[in-house]
Amino acid sequence: MGELPRTVSIREVGPRDGLQNEDPVPTGAKVRLLDALSGTGVGRIEAVSFVHPKAIPQMADADDVWAAARKAEGVRYSALVPNSRGTQRALAAGFREVEVVVSASETHNRRNVNRSVGESLDDISRLIGQLHAAGSTAEVIVATSFGCPYQGDVDPRAVARIVDRVVADGADRISFGDTTGMATPYRVREVVAAVRERHPDLALLLHFHDTRGTALANLLTALDLGVTEFDASVGGLGGCPYAPGATGNVATEEVVHMLHDMGIDTGVDLDALLAAAALAEQIVGRRLPSGVLRAGPRTRLTPLT
Amino acid sequence: MGELPRTVSIREVGPRDGLQNEDPVPTGAKVRLLDALSGTGVGRIEAVSFVHPKAIPQMADADDVWAAARKAEGVRYSALVPNSRGTQRALAAGFREVEVVVSASETHNRRNVNRSVGESLDDISRLIGQLHAAGSTAEVIVATSFGCPYQGDVDPRAVARIVDRVVADGADRISFGDTTGMATPYRVREVVAAVRERHPDLALLLHFHDTRGTALANLLTALDLGVTEFDASVGGLGGCPYAPGATGNVATEEVVHMLHDMGIDTGVDLDALLAAAALAEQIVGRRLPSGVLRAGPRTRLTPLT
Repeated sequence: MGELPRTVSIREVGPRDGLQNEDPVPTGAKVRLLDALSGTGVGRIEAVSFVHPKAIPQMADADDVWAAARKAEGVRYSALVPNSRGTQRALAAGFREVEVVVSASETHNRRNVNRSVGESLDDISRLIGQLHAAGSTAEVIVATSFGCPYQGDVDPRAVARIVDRVVADGADRISFGDTTGMATPYRVREVVAAVRERHPDLALLLHFHDTRGTALANLLTALDLGVTEFDASVGGLGGCPYAPGATGNVATEEVVHMLHDMGIDTGVDLDALLAAAALAEQIVGRRLPSGVLRAGPRTRLTPLT
Repeated sequence: MGELPRTVSIREVGPRDGLQNEDPVPTGAKVRLLDALSGTGVGRIEAVSFVHPKAIPQMADADDVWAAARKAEGVRYSALVPNSRGTQRALAAGFREVEVVVSASETHNRRNVNRSVGESLDDISRLIGQLHAAGSTAEVIVATSFGCPYQGDVDPRAVARIVDRVVADGADRISFGDTTGMATPYRVREVVAAVRERHPDLALLLHFHDTRGTALANLLTALDLGVTEFDASVGGLGGCPYAPGATGNVATEEVVHMLHDMGIDTGVDLDALLAAAALAEQIVGRRLPSGVLRAGPRTRLTPLT
């Protein structure tokens, strides 16, 4: 393993990706969680998605949540949108970092949005134009980049071809989702290599799930490859509603805990983050999978009794 | 990351370390689990411990379990002993691979066995002699090698000094326990470096817990350093009764699943191992923490319905 990055940028996705995949919670609870996270020192937060309330009732109050939430200085907030209507809502709400999504797997894309990958890419091309025209950046999330629960392995070249297309269409950023926790150190190397072969200078943001225990091993592999941007979800909130068997996103506090121990700066105050994770657990009313929330950081000593 | 090992030797510790840290289960159930594991292709199994039944009632029937268990060809079975009496029992039962334990942390050792580290090392010196005289190998397990829940960080040089002593006393093998899940990639590098500086050719066996999500990241780090021997526990059975907040050992199937995906051979049949993990879950009557047991291997597809 070579020289690792000195700093890592974490995007906290609990308020959107996390809560979208839990039973609906009250608007006030969402605002409290967002505000708590805004005070942790994390640099980026995926705040809400603007989706049809019938499709995703968990995000029906996105406008109200965002209107009430504190907008902390120094934090970049983003929103996810599925289409033109969502894009208009996100822009009207004031977002200037917006994410759109397509699956690398044809089957998963069809199950997810009832479109072919090609049709989604055409939609995305238009959405990028709409976002740029309004002064917003556009990020493309490539779901199932490390495997599809229906198809199995996804050819890293298929991921790279999507990158080709959306880069040509003007995407400002691209992220790679391990939608159902199929990523492994081997797959991370393959996907990063395939993308970098054609886009050596593209910043990559990786999004891991801990479904099969590999999340931090994947992250370590990516660090070794020089990747410095990762999604993570407070407490390990959320999963993917279209992906049976998927468990939660990697917990932000597990990521921060490991990185800080390695001397890598994230800007996050782990104690504040753990308080936010405890709040998240209280809000959803179930035990969250985060080990660091459960056991405490390794530096928290057990009193001798 | 450089060239990784082509093969890894896993020692399955569920029957001993796992079940010792669960509520007691019937003798027949222990035998069934041992027999199932003997058929997975795993090369080494920690079968039982010979400890005082008042101290550890879970292992009171160790003689009966071992007498009834199938001894599969090609599998190396080991037993753990705390003292001379246990050593006699292990030898009488036919074991020729025996483990003894000492903590790298003074406080943890005193809490665990009510002795100083120095006193334990003197005991171990005598036990090694007793084992060698009877034709058995002696392995020394160094507990809390990556941190102590009472003291905090453990100086890697303290771990190395224990290695110095037990190597001088004739230990055949040494393993390093992450007793309460305090290991991280950084700590793994530090401990392995400190030990190798003085004992460059010593084979290291590492034992990780997944308390804070880092188990497979630690294992990946160790692989990168050329370590090829690891403990793991079927289903993630067990923890440490003297270590508050500790969750289970890393699940064998999570280790095997990641290694096989990386093209590293373990000799283990993952399907047979998953069947043993399901049996372990049934035996202890609680949901075990293994993600691969829960979600299935990444290659198990979800049917399109």
